[in-house]
Amino acid sequence: MRVLLVGATGTIGSAIARALAPKHDVIAASHSRAPHTVDLGRPDSIRSLFEKVGRIDAVISAAGRAAFRPFLELTDADFQLSLSNKLMGQVNLVRLGLGAVADGGSFTLTSGILAQKPMPGGAAISLVNAGLEGFTRAAALEAPRAIRVNVVSPGWVTETLIALKMDPGGGTPAAVVAKAYVRALEGRMTGEVLSP
Amino acid sequence: MRVLLVGATGTIGSAIARALAPKHDVIAASHSRAPHTVDLGRPDSIRSLFEKVGRIDAVISAAGRAAFRPFLELTDADFQLSLSNKLMGQVNLVRLGLGAVADGGSFTLTSGILAQKPMPGGAAISLVNAGLEGFTRAAALEAPRAIRVNVVSPGWVTETLIALKMDPGGGTPAAVVAKAYVRALEGRMTGEVLSP
Repeated sequence: MRVLLVGATGTIGSAIARALAPKHDVIAASHSRAPHTVDLGRPDSIRSLFEKVGRIDAVISAAGRAAFRPFLELTDADFQLSLSNKLMGQVNLVRLGLGAVADGGSFTLTSGILAQKPMPGGAAISLVNAGLEGFTRAAALEAPRAIRVNVVSPGWVTETLIALKMDPGGGTPAAVVAKAYVRALEGRMTGEVLSP
Repeated sequence: MRVLLVGATGTIGSAIARALAPKHDVIAASHSRAPHTVDLGRPDSIRSLFEKVGRIDAVISAAGRAAFRPFLELTDADFQLSLSNKLMGQVNLVRLGLGAVADGGSFTLTSGILAQKPMPGGAAISLVNAGLEGFTRAAALEAPRAIRVNVVSPGWVTETLIALKMDPGGGTPAAVVAKAYVRALEGRMTGEVLSP
């Protein structure tokens, strides 16, 4: 399949690219370092991306910024960034990308464990992640031409924990997380929240 | 308790007001018809409301607008309204109202059944409702001074179904829905999604 991978240079995204490479044609996009660039916070940038890549079979997003900060310190700008980037950026990938995706194709978005299991500092991210899961369940009901919509909810990624000098014991390797995206791409499910 | 009730003139809100009246001092607010008016979509309007009402023990919100429309017809403005009003309006009631609420007080917000059980036309509302539930779980962890944060997720309300000339068979009477808000107000739970 011809797969547009948004966030292709990130920790999870690069693992997805490696997992897809043997069987699929990956079109890599990211904010700045991939062959195609896109600013998820700007609908016109998303529109421009879809115009450039043409017909595709699927979109996988492992991208989106959201603010991690103590609840009492979260600013209006932190919520604005989180809503416009990770949340509406991914929602808009679906809304603006539907016309570019072939019949029976799919969208796979990324939420995260904080949707269901909160932690201090994660109020804006919990909001965004849970919102993406609610959106996915609903959008899947109305996507035309048998197009599927799912979302992967990763927990902590081992490589991220190591980069943050945290205990990697509870983490999942990015290569394992990537398998959930492959399942969503190659499977038949829709409207589901997949846990790696 | 001295309870600020936002959305006091709505179907659910007026039932909450009746349920609280025997034991609590209800300060009624709504977009236009209550003694206090507030525009949830404008943070300055929310700030002004809290300045007017002074010290309170709890805030209950049964308010907020979100767009119900087929997914393929939802506009940028529909998402913007839904995010700024029902979602961030209620989030901002917590953020901007924390200083007005007494130690051990509470916030009770409103999501809705579409958070978990989607239906066609409800993509923006599912997003908003699920986002409110994620936010509530997280904000409850960090609310200071033993302040509790919960959210009630009503299903279809009998009175609403009748007003829409739909079959009221699967509905729950507003007076029953209101009891969930009373439980959240008088109970000890925090970070919970209450089903009426």
